[in-house]
Amino acid sequence: MTQKFNSRVYVTLRPSVLDTAGTAVKSELHQLGYQGVEHIRIGKYIELTLTAESKELADKQLHEICDQLLANPVIENYSFDLIPVDAQ
Amino acid sequence: MTQKFNSRVYVTLRPSVLDTAGTAVKSELHQLGYQGVEHIRIGKYIELTLTAESKELADKQLHEICDQLLANPVIENYSFDLIPVDAQ
Repeated sequence: MTQKFNSRVYVTLRPSVLDTAGTAVKSELHQLGYQGVEHIRIGKYIELTLTAESKELADKQLHEICDQLLANPVIENYSFDLIPVDAQ
Repeated sequence: MTQKFNSRVYVTLRPSVLDTAGTAVKSELHQLGYQGVEHIRIGKYIELTLTAESKELADKQLHEICDQLLANPVIENYSFDLIPVDAQ
């Protein structure tokens, strides 16, 4: 029996890595008059649907997928949630 | 008196827009053996800190910022949350 899961993956730059795009956006926002914006970090947001035998296997597969393809573990962190889809 | 807010912004392609990066990632995942991945959409995830007079003003500013800089309203949707930071 397989289960279907919805997942949202958040990929962010590690805090020690300079976020050049974020710095550019912050500077542009200040020029546009939004002085209230202080920190800004830009990352990736991925929505996907995954079918697996169990939640444990889905979790394991998603970790592998993130490490191999969605995130660069050298400079990025990731987190995800995994929500079972009731309707099969 | 000003208040500080943490915000997380999610920018996603509108459902009617073809996600070429997502399609490429899905095809690559299938080649790597992850047949269980069905839908995949790639978007942006932005973390920022904003100072404003009130939550209403912060909300208004963030909508402007998203429309002007963070998202392309023609092809993208966005949503965000706005969490007051207690420590001033």
